[in-house]
Amino acid sequence: MKTRVGIMGYGNLGRGVEAAIKQNPDMELVGVFTRRDPAAVTIQTEGVGVYKLDDCKTMQDDIDVMILCGGSAADLPWMSPEYAHFFNTVESFDTHADIPWHVDNVNASDIANDKTSIVSCGWDPGLFSVARVMTGAILPAGKAYTFWGKGVSQGHSDAVRQIPGVKDARQYTLPVQDVMDAIRGGAMPELTAGQMHTREVFVVCDDDVTEDDKADIVEDIKTMPAYFEDYNTTVHFITEEEMQRDHSGLPHGGFVIRSGGVGPDGKDKAVVEFSLNLDSNPEFTGSVLVACARACHRMNQEGSYGCKTMLDVPPAYYSPMSRDELLEKMM
Amino acid sequence: MKTRVGIMGYGNLGRGVEAAIKQNPDMELVGVFTRRDPAAVTIQTEGVGVYKLDDCKTMQDDIDVMILCGGSAADLPWMSPEYAHFFNTVESFDTHADIPWHVDNVNASDIANDKTSIVSCGWDPGLFSVARVMTGAILPAGKAYTFWGKGVSQGHSDAVRQIPGVKDARQYTLPVQDVMDAIRGGAMPELTAGQMHTREVFVVCDDDVTEDDKADIVEDIKTMPAYFEDYNTTVHFITEEEMQRDHSGLPHGGFVIRSGGVGPDGKDKAVVEFSLNLDSNPEFTGSVLVACARACHRMNQEGSYGCKTMLDVPPAYYSPMSRDELLEKMM
Repeated sequence: MKTRVGIMGYGNLGRGVEAAIKQNPDMELVGVFTRRDPAAVTIQTEGVGVYKLDDCKTMQDDIDVMILCGGSAADLPWMSPEYAHFFNTVESFDTHADIPWHVDNVNASDIANDKTSIVSCGWDPGLFSVARVMTGAILPAGKAYTFWGKGVSQGHSDAVRQIPGVKDARQYTLPVQDVMDAIRGGAMPELTAGQMHTREVFVVCDDDVTEDDKADIVEDIKTMPAYFEDYNTTVHFITEEEMQRDHSGLPHGGFVIRSGGVGPDGKDKAVVEFSLNLDSNPEFTGSVLVACARACHRMNQEGSYGCKTMLDVPPAYYSPMSRDELLEKMM
Repeated sequence: MKTRVGIMGYGNLGRGVEAAIKQNPDMELVGVFTRRDPAAVTIQTEGVGVYKLDDCKTMQDDIDVMILCGGSAADLPWMSPEYAHFFNTVESFDTHADIPWHVDNVNASDIANDKTSIVSCGWDPGLFSVARVMTGAILPAGKAYTFWGKGVSQGHSDAVRQIPGVKDARQYTLPVQDVMDAIRGGAMPELTAGQMHTREVFVVCDDDVTEDDKADIVEDIKTMPAYFEDYNTTVHFITEEEMQRDHSGLPHGGFVIRSGGVGPDGKDKAVVEFSLNLDSNPEFTGSVLVACARACHRMNQEGSYGCKTMLDVPPAYYSPMSRDELLEKMM
């Protein structure tokens, strides 16, 4: 019996989820739900329909888990509590500070309807949260560091695009290698995000931009509060063709490194590291969401209702393997 | 209310567990249980008694979780099913092929007595199993590789010590760097353990060993079936003083790397890596066991009885933090 999945929202992440479902023979795509005109949306899976968002409400018996592929700023704060009334849901809400509030909202819908949701799935929050919690419990006399990159930050790219004279922009976040190596060696410094990362920006200018204007653009970027002012930032001006050729992907990645002391007086070092290197951030996140959908369906079938995060999910629940197979092949 | 822990077996691992308990304010050591004469065993925790093994059976009301620190070959196969009649237990059984059989044995004791056990805890099996299962579920179109080292293999060191003329020996397992880098780059070759690792052996000879004898020892090591014959092995002869000075620790570590394809036709690469670098293998394993003891106690309090592995444990259960704290600080 396959897990029957719906996808709500068909942008980069929704397409990543669709591709991941194809890789999992125990999962089946049942429908894609969109705010656009369904007739104008072409999907990659033959024989599967595209519907308006609220058409899903008539399809509750056909869908085991709805994967919500909206954005964290404008979509998921209302979408997740709303559709958790009707479906088990999985999503990737990633505004870290608002997660407690979001979990409460979604939980209320779940509990009222015997549904299960797993929110804030993906890699950070998600896999990185799991790594931080497990390594934190194992090495209490230690310190964890999260590095992001090398990868594209869409929020920072968008912020640069707002500057007058900028036609297009791509921002990469990079971890500082020396700092990372020191931590791997057991150092436990106090660090700001700006000391752990640098930023690199590629900019395409409007046609009428002068050299003086470019100097202003560099200044505007480097001094932008919150986004750039606390970071060592490098700006490159490139052509539209170069942008298209060299910067059209959405790579990302990162590292969670926890270093701590074990043994008598914590005198012996232990360093645990979890890292990702991704050609495509949304496609990988889609793959995580599909594994979470499998877990969500199982937890619901077992009567474990309410809003969860990946911190609440036993690893075995993500896997298509039986318990016997896992013990035999994966331990 | 602290989790009250007993330690059964007081070798390197038992001492590692004791040190880890001291680092966790919510855990308390209640007693150490030994097959030796308790009067001859000195422990590091003031005010805690040392007892004969079966004295524990009169202390069931005082101990929430018994951590079994015996060996996988001779101790845990009988010790774990025996003491799971009386206690929630946590241990580090690491004979991979026998894990399904061992889980069944321990489970029978647990279920008959409303107890919970978590077996095969540590890093491999344990954390590495979790990494293999989670990354396998997320990247089904991929391949996982487990590398061990650089670290001391006690089994291989013992095997060399059996060779006539060898007074002492230490064997290090090392991952092959080039192979690891190729996999990090997305390659998915078929590899044997011997292609992924080299072995380095340090030998102290008996006083009467000649140069010819040394050549025989090298030959005996390099051709030893199962242990060395399939590996590129280097042998160094050193003095007793050098052994003492440079090789008295028990460092270890390793890497689980899964590389896979995501997106349409799996054309985009994703590489996930989990790694450890440990000054002391038994002390780190002891720290994992203590986090597992916390999880074991909780699962038992919730009525989740039977024999589990780390694949069955939600990450939050390892942590001393409340759910609210985890959502606020760790996601």
